[in-house]
Amino acid sequence: MSLSIKDDEIDIVIGALRPDLTAFMNEWRTVFSRFHLIIVKDPDLKEELKIPEGFNLDVYKKPDIDRVVGTSTSTIFSGYSCRYFGYLVSRKKYIISVDDDCYPAKDNKGILVDAVAQHITNLTTPATPFFFNTLYDPFTEGADFVRGYPFSLRSGVQCALSCGLWLNLADYDAPTQALKPEERNSRYVDAVLTVPARTLMPISGINIAFNREVIGPALLPSLRLGGEGKFRWETMEDIWSGMCVKVVCDHLGLGVKTGMPYVWRNDRGDAIASLRKEWEGVKLMEEVVPFFQSVRLSREATTTEDCVAEVANVVKEQLGSKDPMFARAAKAMVDWVKLWKSVGSSTSSPGA
Amino acid sequence: MSLSIKDDEIDIVIGALRPDLTAFMNEWRTVFSRFHLIIVKDPDLKEELKIPEGFNLDVYKKPDIDRVVGTSTSTIFSGYSCRYFGYLVSRKKYIISVDDDCYPAKDNKGILVDAVAQHITNLTTPATPFFFNTLYDPFTEGADFVRGYPFSLRSGVQCALSCGLWLNLADYDAPTQALKPEERNSRYVDAVLTVPARTLMPISGINIAFNREVIGPALLPSLRLGGEGKFRWETMEDIWSGMCVKVVCDHLGLGVKTGMPYVWRNDRGDAIASLRKEWEGVKLMEEVVPFFQSVRLSREATTTEDCVAEVANVVKEQLGSKDPMFARAAKAMVDWVKLWKSVGSSTSSPGA
Repeated sequence: MSLSIKDDEIDIVIGALRPDLTAFMNEWRTVFSRFHLIIVKDPDLKEELKIPEGFNLDVYKKPDIDRVVGTSTSTIFSGYSCRYFGYLVSRKKYIISVDDDCYPAKDNKGILVDAVAQHITNLTTPATPFFFNTLYDPFTEGADFVRGYPFSLRSGVQCALSCGLWLNLADYDAPTQALKPEERNSRYVDAVLTVPARTLMPISGINIAFNREVIGPALLPSLRLGGEGKFRWETMEDIWSGMCVKVVCDHLGLGVKTGMPYVWRNDRGDAIASLRKEWEGVKLMEEVVPFFQSVRLSREATTTEDCVAEVANVVKEQLGSKDPMFARAAKAMVDWVKLWKSVGSSTSSPGA
Repeated sequence: MSLSIKDDEIDIVIGALRPDLTAFMNEWRTVFSRFHLIIVKDPDLKEELKIPEGFNLDVYKKPDIDRVVGTSTSTIFSGYSCRYFGYLVSRKKYIISVDDDCYPAKDNKGILVDAVAQHITNLTTPATPFFFNTLYDPFTEGADFVRGYPFSLRSGVQCALSCGLWLNLADYDAPTQALKPEERNSRYVDAVLTVPARTLMPISGINIAFNREVIGPALLPSLRLGGEGKFRWETMEDIWSGMCVKVVCDHLGLGVKTGMPYVWRNDRGDAIASLRKEWEGVKLMEEVVPFFQSVRLSREATTTEDCVAEVANVVKEQLGSKDPMFARAAKAMVDWVKLWKSVGSSTSSPGA
């Protein structure tokens, strides 16, 4: 773990989509127990949460969400989006968030991965988005910039977002899962790299960390599919939010890293059953990717809030008429910035 | 190895900067012996080459070079640039080139890496430069495109260039080597990835492979430093050529991959002594990188030859007045395209 970071600068945010968190919490105990946890219960979940003892945590449930944002707004936090409520009420500099069906992974040598330490290292060392270093992250121990890397670019830029990966059940869409039901990811790639400026990628919310002070408002629940369910492959909120956050980082000269740490994803859900739903998410990307690739923000957009508001405007203008889902997403983005400004600056504690 | 490729579609090109290739060739015997080799002797090297028996090879020496390109042109092939003569006289579809101080590497499991097989796999599976796949090369066995990757981009584009990496002595510049004389690269990263479109990187000539039919003329000896010597860290020809080839690939919609295969680089040379030379190469990159980042080719440039000629023109216009080295590089690029057209279409066999 980077020495300059104190444990109390970090919140670990968990969206609870399942009532029984016992196994999840116990598996993560050695990694999580030093930190403050924010657990946000999916407002659609009826059963009581089961959480083992011995953690420093706050739990937020539907009444807490209603109290902070109002009952009309609280619907945006259903399902996987419940975690965004945790991002909103956190007052810490760094947030780490992991899906509740993921356990700690082991590295190539069989050693348990400390995902928190790796994410914080990623966030506290510079990113290098303007020129690609072929030996990956030059700030990793034992690595450096290769011959030909301009010295003027070696100080890098601040890293705002760290996207971790997954072993075992990879983050495939439903068609891919259905086509290859037996496929598991067993390839542990010992690398972190900066995603180059102006390069987009599908950011997954399964295992991420970010600098909340710098980029917090750009991680937002806004695009919701009609048939969205409780399986990752049925959601698009994180992919959409990820396109938004990458565009904002590129505009503000911030870095995004991907690679380690890995988490171990357990099997869950039935991809074949998921396929029977309408696959609007898959179709949507054909519009969304060219759109985000073409978005350019104005010089006046100097804060993350400004940038999100500008992206929302362009979404409304260019995509709004194509599908009402996009118009709703644009409105949700504008509302989110307002919410972030009001709630983000006030204090808030859970009822639990 | 990709099944569709025949061994006789591949030339392995070795630039011989040292007279005794016995150990080098014997280490590579199991990997190289199935293929045709082109060995180009550095025209500055006086001693006779020592090459072990049992290979299918052609050796080109100074008289051969003089005969093919003329004595006035043959100077461009001195030092590391001698390999480019091999690229010129090859008639094969694929070229693989490895520095003569590199031996086969072992992977994480201790198994000898077949660098030829990995390069050919990289070149014969599609590249994906328009959207980044977080699980790296989706065409690797056991991998796929992650959730959110647009289906319309999943067929990818043709891969023209495969850039391998180095274990042990990494490819650092002289200042970095001098600062960290004990640093060795021991991190075997089990991944191949497509370098995104419009992202530049320092391409090294130590361990590369390319589709000669598609991109051959863009790998060229043109930028030569005044104090250029016989150590990798004293050269820039490959970095310059790499910027050129990446810009051409981006323009033509071709892909560039980096990562595996690794080779094992042996220690050679004295970085401290190298530091006493004038470090023009390091300074040069400060001009060269912004230049190549800004180059845009015209729609009329539809072949690799066209593209190289256009890049040469812009080099002359924009950089030519800054340093005579750039003006010379521009001329060398134009000359190279002519040479490629004349020699590349004629037949040629070595005198040896």
